[in-house]
Amino acid sequence: MSVFTAVAPETLARWLGRYAIGRLVDLQGISAGVQNSNFFVTTTLGRYVLTLFEAIPRAELPFYLHLMAHLARHGLPVPAPIADRDNEYLGTLNQRPAALVMRLSGHSEMAPSERHCERVGAMLAGLHLAGLSYGRKQDNPRGAAWRTVTAARVRPFLAADEQALLDAELAFQAAANYAQLPCGVIHADLFRDNVLWDGDYIGGVIDFYFAGQDALLFDVAVTFNDWCATPSGELDPQRAEAFLCAYHAERPFTDAERADWAAMLRAAALRFWLSRAEDFHLPKAGEMVHVKSPAEYRDILRLRIAATHPLPL
Amino acid sequence: MSVFTAVAPETLARWLGRYAIGRLVDLQGISAGVQNSNFFVTTTLGRYVLTLFEAIPRAELPFYLHLMAHLARHGLPVPAPIADRDNEYLGTLNQRPAALVMRLSGHSEMAPSERHCERVGAMLAGLHLAGLSYGRKQDNPRGAAWRTVTAARVRPFLAADEQALLDAELAFQAAANYAQLPCGVIHADLFRDNVLWDGDYIGGVIDFYFAGQDALLFDVAVTFNDWCATPSGELDPQRAEAFLCAYHAERPFTDAERADWAAMLRAAALRFWLSRAEDFHLPKAGEMVHVKSPAEYRDILRLRIAATHPLPL
Repeated sequence: MSVFTAVAPETLARWLGRYAIGRLVDLQGISAGVQNSNFFVTTTLGRYVLTLFEAIPRAELPFYLHLMAHLARHGLPVPAPIADRDNEYLGTLNQRPAALVMRLSGHSEMAPSERHCERVGAMLAGLHLAGLSYGRKQDNPRGAAWRTVTAARVRPFLAADEQALLDAELAFQAAANYAQLPCGVIHADLFRDNVLWDGDYIGGVIDFYFAGQDALLFDVAVTFNDWCATPSGELDPQRAEAFLCAYHAERPFTDAERADWAAMLRAAALRFWLSRAEDFHLPKAGEMVHVKSPAEYRDILRLRIAATHPLPL
Repeated sequence: MSVFTAVAPETLARWLGRYAIGRLVDLQGISAGVQNSNFFVTTTLGRYVLTLFEAIPRAELPFYLHLMAHLARHGLPVPAPIADRDNEYLGTLNQRPAALVMRLSGHSEMAPSERHCERVGAMLAGLHLAGLSYGRKQDNPRGAAWRTVTAARVRPFLAADEQALLDAELAFQAAANYAQLPCGVIHADLFRDNVLWDGDYIGGVIDFYFAGQDALLFDVAVTFNDWCATPSGELDPQRAEAFLCAYHAERPFTDAERADWAAMLRAAALRFWLSRAEDFHLPKAGEMVHVKSPAEYRDILRLRIAATHPLPL
């Protein structure tokens, strides 16, 4: 259960007086998420999600909240943050930074079809295009600097063959030159559990708290590694094709992106191998339940070194 | 069919390139609305409503679009306008001012229960509270000035007893002093067909193109006359109670509002008698289909003069 800070209904009912969304009807903790305390909040006027931020520094939160507001304003199904009567998105509840966002409808699809992958490809391109006019900048919090620090922290816990793989991949990525790639705001965590399906449509793209400025191709690679792979991590050529063509139709890939695609798939795999290894070997208090095995992304890294799938022309 | 300006799919597909909402999948004219041309637009990324404005001057449109954006930002289920890649809500299509808004789900409830009236009362208060922090101002386009002009235009078409009723009510309203009433942004047309129900919840409040600055109590009266009356226009005491108490719980009525309630119900009835009489006797080209009989609101005016229902303490 990922509720680190309890919220009493009476406390929340009083706090909601700051908003124009009516009176509290129901409050339920949400057992997903590894960083924050999340709750479903039902009022007389609607359904919302309340988040108490446990780890992200308060100063970094406006970037995320205004990004979600910006993307929602551009017509994309992301959880729009709710402004209070003073027009502020970010408040304080139980000594934590806190925000309300719209609750979106739909369910995750953990066994996506080609059709799902096509829609996700188009949506990712839509997010990237809408993000181009977003004014705030914040670096990808799991970018190259984080990678170096984290690799050093987890390396002692790895087996010898894993250490060799890590050393080789760090050297390979350090030698890569991604300077020609188009940059922008990336979601950076568009896994299957962060997309809510409402029938054939994407009713919600959630969890923007890893977003930041980086190569758009990195986001394509992160999403691709999750959506277009078999349970053992190998590529599914049909889903890969559907995803990449749908993205390409909205935002055509550049020559530089085509050249760097294989390397970027490896960078994306490395990023999740490292974060999962860190969560596994160096867990923080209260973050135990949702830890995923680091082996999955170690294996995906090995597979992406061995073979890839070309970008569309 | 209230589509005054046709839109070809190829034209719209090209126009959508200004947005980040994917590619056109489907386009359908909407047969509701008396002022604008409306279309359901489905793209690869979502479902939207396209409006081509036929009558409202372009300079007045930002007030409405930013109002909808403001209320959506405050967590209320109104059709949020979609910003294009230049961050603009208002564009031009087929020589008309044009905007895309989010399509909301739900259906109108033409035979509302006490429960529905309770929710509508709370929602109207929520709209009023959220509207307090809206910065733009525009007068209620169907306010006192419009009333005087319109009464003079339609009077020649009325029967003698109707003329007497109109003259007496105009004199009564001219003598009323509403200066003490709290003012703000009002929807001014929150009829049953402008609320979409999603199960027990209000999934959408639509059609903000009569909104403006006026006494909040006028909005309460307009809404009350539609939601809390029997088909013959008489008050339903249970629904009246449910509606008014729910509103009062969110935004308590002031003493001045209690004092002016009976007069305001008459002002609200007069406004719709006049607009329907105008639409009936002086129709504009292309506005024939949805004209409603003016008799309904003439009778409601007579009934509200004869009897009313008190505001909650």
